[in-house]
Amino acid sequence: MINHFCKKPLWECTRVLADVAEGRRSADVVIKDAQLVNVCTAEIQEHIDVAIAEGRIAYVGDADHCIGEHTHVIDASGLFIAPGFLDGHIHVESSMMGAGEYARAVVPHGTSGIYWDPHEICNVLGLEGVKVMMEDAERTPLKAMVTTPSCVPAVPGFEDTGSFIGPQEIAESMSWDGVVGLGEMMNFVGVVNSTEHAHGELVETLKADKVVTGHYSIPETDRGLNAYIASGVRCCHESTRAEDALAKMRLGQYAQLRYGSAWHDLPELAHAITDNDIDTRFANLVSDDTHPHTLVEDGHLDHVLRIAVKCGIPVIEAIQMVTINVATCFRMDNELGSITPGKCADIVFLDGLDTLQVTRMMIDGEIVAENGRALFDYPRFQFPEWVTHSMHLGREITPDDFIVSAPEGAQDGDQVNVRAIEIIPAKVGTFEAHVGLTVEDGQLKSELGQDVLKTFVFERHHETGTVGVGFTKGFGIKRGAMASTVAHDAHNLLVVGTNDEDMALAANTLAKCGGGMVVVADGEVLGLVELPIAGLMNDLGAVEMSEKVHSVEQAWAEIGCTMPSPFMTMALIPLACLPELRLTNRGLVDCTTFQFVDLIIEESESE
Amino acid sequence: MINHFCKKPLWECTRVLADVAEGRRSADVVIKDAQLVNVCTAEIQEHIDVAIAEGRIAYVGDADHCIGEHTHVIDASGLFIAPGFLDGHIHVESSMMGAGEYARAVVPHGTSGIYWDPHEICNVLGLEGVKVMMEDAERTPLKAMVTTPSCVPAVPGFEDTGSFIGPQEIAESMSWDGVVGLGEMMNFVGVVNSTEHAHGELVETLKADKVVTGHYSIPETDRGLNAYIASGVRCCHESTRAEDALAKMRLGQYAQLRYGSAWHDLPELAHAITDNDIDTRFANLVSDDTHPHTLVEDGHLDHVLRIAVKCGIPVIEAIQMVTINVATCFRMDNELGSITPGKCADIVFLDGLDTLQVTRMMIDGEIVAENGRALFDYPRFQFPEWVTHSMHLGREITPDDFIVSAPEGAQDGDQVNVRAIEIIPAKVGTFEAHVGLTVEDGQLKSELGQDVLKTFVFERHHETGTVGVGFTKGFGIKRGAMASTVAHDAHNLLVVGTNDEDMALAANTLAKCGGGMVVVADGEVLGLVELPIAGLMNDLGAVEMSEKVHSVEQAWAEIGCTMPSPFMTMALIPLACLPELRLTNRGLVDCTTFQFVDLIIEESESE
Repeated sequence: MINHFCKKPLWECTRVLADVAEGRRSADVVIKDAQLVNVCTAEIQEHIDVAIAEGRIAYVGDADHCIGEHTHVIDASGLFIAPGFLDGHIHVESSMMGAGEYARAVVPHGTSGIYWDPHEICNVLGLEGVKVMMEDAERTPLKAMVTTPSCVPAVPGFEDTGSFIGPQEIAESMSWDGVVGLGEMMNFVGVVNSTEHAHGELVETLKADKVVTGHYSIPETDRGLNAYIASGVRCCHESTRAEDALAKMRLGQYAQLRYGSAWHDLPELAHAITDNDIDTRFANLVSDDTHPHTLVEDGHLDHVLRIAVKCGIPVIEAIQMVTINVATCFRMDNELGSITPGKCADIVFLDGLDTLQVTRMMIDGEIVAENGRALFDYPRFQFPEWVTHSMHLGREITPDDFIVSAPEGAQDGDQVNVRAIEIIPAKVGTFEAHVGLTVEDGQLKSELGQDVLKTFVFERHHETGTVGVGFTKGFGIKRGAMASTVAHDAHNLLVVGTNDEDMALAANTLAKCGGGMVVVADGEVLGLVELPIAGLMNDLGAVEMSEKVHSVEQAWAEIGCTMPSPFMTMALIPLACLPELRLTNRGLVDCTTFQFVDLIIEESESE
Repeated sequence: MINHFCKKPLWECTRVLADVAEGRRSADVVIKDAQLVNVCTAEIQEHIDVAIAEGRIAYVGDADHCIGEHTHVIDASGLFIAPGFLDGHIHVESSMMGAGEYARAVVPHGTSGIYWDPHEICNVLGLEGVKVMMEDAERTPLKAMVTTPSCVPAVPGFEDTGSFIGPQEIAESMSWDGVVGLGEMMNFVGVVNSTEHAHGELVETLKADKVVTGHYSIPETDRGLNAYIASGVRCCHESTRAEDALAKMRLGQYAQLRYGSAWHDLPELAHAITDNDIDTRFANLVSDDTHPHTLVEDGHLDHVLRIAVKCGIPVIEAIQMVTINVATCFRMDNELGSITPGKCADIVFLDGLDTLQVTRMMIDGEIVAENGRALFDYPRFQFPEWVTHSMHLGREITPDDFIVSAPEGAQDGDQVNVRAIEIIPAKVGTFEAHVGLTVEDGQLKSELGQDVLKTFVFERHHETGTVGVGFTKGFGIKRGAMASTVAHDAHNLLVVGTNDEDMALAANTLAKCGGGMVVVADGEVLGLVELPIAGLMNDLGAVEMSEKVHSVEQAWAEIGCTMPSPFMTMALIPLACLPELRLTNRGLVDCTTFQFVDLIIEESESE
């Protein structure tokens, strides 16, 4: 695949690079006396210089002969250098920032490239929205390589989104320079069942010689996984068990071991590596979703690397998993992923392999961050006005909208069994819990004693007025309500709460501000993050966003929830491509059989 | 890069593969109960089945559910299966056979794909000759992936060839489906020195997103090697020292460890692996040049694998070096190089990992060889008439053509110092030896006491009448003469001998039969291999060719030479891209400085 993410294509600078390597022309930059993390041979090499010209590496060795009058010499003695970190699967929107501010947040942590799937904005605003984000990204040094969203809606027929993607849209986007592949094919059911729609998208990607990325989230590693991989899906970040990751690697699929803000799969998945004596070239480390607080406090892939090492993965192997292994996964290892001649000069400076603290960051031969601070600057991105108008509910929401009537014939005091979505802290999965609720005022209500809350999803793209109704178990809140327009992947308006008045307040607060995340209690807004851009993002930077999110997390705690990043877990309640039970604007979905199911469990069923 | 070497492109069969994996449709073939050499994780997996459809792997596991009425079930219990072997750098012409017969010789030894550089025929007959060979290759199941010859002539300005390749020819060939890259860029001097011609060819290849293969044959691993790799050269098979191979791998270049019929570099190069604790993903095993006798007696990559294991390389790592590592080098690992879903069903059956004997061979899901015998058959390839007329000397050669006059002023009995090409058995390199010859009859003659022989190269493509004159040391023959039109890479007429009459007889014998290799003594032809196709190949099969070559090797032995494959060593005498001293039709070339040098060493020089 032609690499469009470089200062100049290699074919335009081979002669200059040869001149510099030979000392006939001086380098633009020389890094002196570093300890090189050689990801090709998995060694540390001492006292290595790197000479750079045209944004590419010309020479690795003792580079005194490459230094001229105008060469910028960087003393790296005592430091380690590694290839720029590559994140093989991420969604920028999870940071609640635009791609430009996201870049400013992650580049100082060593990230030189991301393979991003902008499927959140695509669900709301379509490929036109994606283009807006790409425009913002292009201004930054970060290599923001797009994989076109494949599943909009995530699971067709089960929800309403603001947009639609099919084989034709995929085919069109594959001709864009910034697109390197297909975004996570969440419709693994469609792939495994050979549906025309899912395969149509794979076909368009394969024909364009680009990479299909995956999402295979069930603990099945036999027929289904084989069918999925045989269809051309090159990588998958949805393993939650070590045996899933191992099975994928054995079947030649890149296992992208995930450690995001709220999905902490890596410690479990690391056992695939540490408990088996295997070649790890098919392992990647990815973040998937990282919220601004994590970016500000912990970092990005540097943080994931530290976790990997803590889990027992040897540090050089771990670094391979965010460099050459990722580049090879995307068949771009001829351009990215190693500090070797001809490659883009994307280089992380680390103070040590124990701390893995990034002290300086170079992309395309330019120092772009130092001591945690991005050095690139530009005016705040001017999002076009139209992206800030994405709340289309068509009406004011009232407390009455949240009444759940008891089934016909049920009397006050009767027990009614319902299907509840039981969340799992720090995991993307849910369980289907069967809960007995007591009829009160002819209604089913939130029952704090059982930690069960009413949950609603209002369609917000086309004023269809459709609403999904269910119950969620496990948040631990004692009062108030929460709402969010970040509600994967359709990003309809999701409301969870203890009482109807607060739920209506939460919903209307977001309707007014163009979307966001809010916590209310007793008629008062306790915390609010406005996300006016598609209801998903703000144009602020990471520190400001982190503060805002933190204040909302405090509000969560105030009403009783102590989970890490509860908003991220809540936001997955509607995501019908993950097991087991989900709620969309069209209703409750059993995501193991992909069927709508009733809220009420009939007596015949529960026997 | 789109893979044109498959039964069907993946995008045409993803749904069928998913159907088979899921058991909705029966497989064409199921391999039962094998021990799988998993090159992704570097493990052996026991009791593995593989289900195949459309020439591709649909499922790996327990495949009973894929077996239908018409499924061909292959019992592999007790056997190992590995991905088809890929040779990352070979010249078919060295086998002295066309590509079709070559395929019949190597496929039974486990080879499913070759990255071949048809630069021998290209030197004689240009890209039209290459096309003829490709036509022959296309009839076979062997994936014969062409890298377009880059250096025709090998070192411009130093010899005359039958053809010329420049950036324009490269650009044209890059659009051919059968072309996957650029053939060995032997003009490393041009690359390192940033010449327009050499870089022009690199540029056309890189623009087409194809792979540049290398040839960096000097023991320099610093500035020059960096310049060479920075220019985009992805792999190199010319390491002769372990430190060369190690340096290349560290610089992100695939080190192709060679073991051909006459170039036995692997035992030395294996130390790069066995003496260092390194990741070996950048190592390949290649054959480069294999003559028919080796193919018949020892095999192809199976033989190289056995040597690698004997040298201490762990067997699974060695197998990675002829499978996934090669596919990754050519950025085709999404299609080839592992037994995983979606890949071409190219599978070697081995009786054991100790013997590495290939018992059966599958390509694109079809059994194509069994117990050493190719199962594919077709009429002998009809080479077009014009390829058999390549001897254009323009005259009869006489014994007087071989007189080397002593320098002016030298008297009979005087010592004259000359530069002689000293061959190194089983290596591609030569030394520049300085030899004192005694003037006799006003001439310099072959001196058997010093093992020094007169050596001539006659231009044979355009009747220019140019002749290069030199001396060779080291063959050990005691009488007679040898001639060959296999004389790399220009393939002019090379004659080496003890006396002028036999030298003339050898030369004219080849002129008459359209080219070949001959040994004569005392006015008699002792051994002859006719190679009428471009003076390089015959249309016979491997066994017949092996017998012919064997008879010529016996003739060599008869006149005193006991080297292995002496013809292959002799054929490199004119190859001006290898150190140190070479003889072309234009004269003696110092291949370390790339300058013509005089045969006679002036007294001032020798002081």
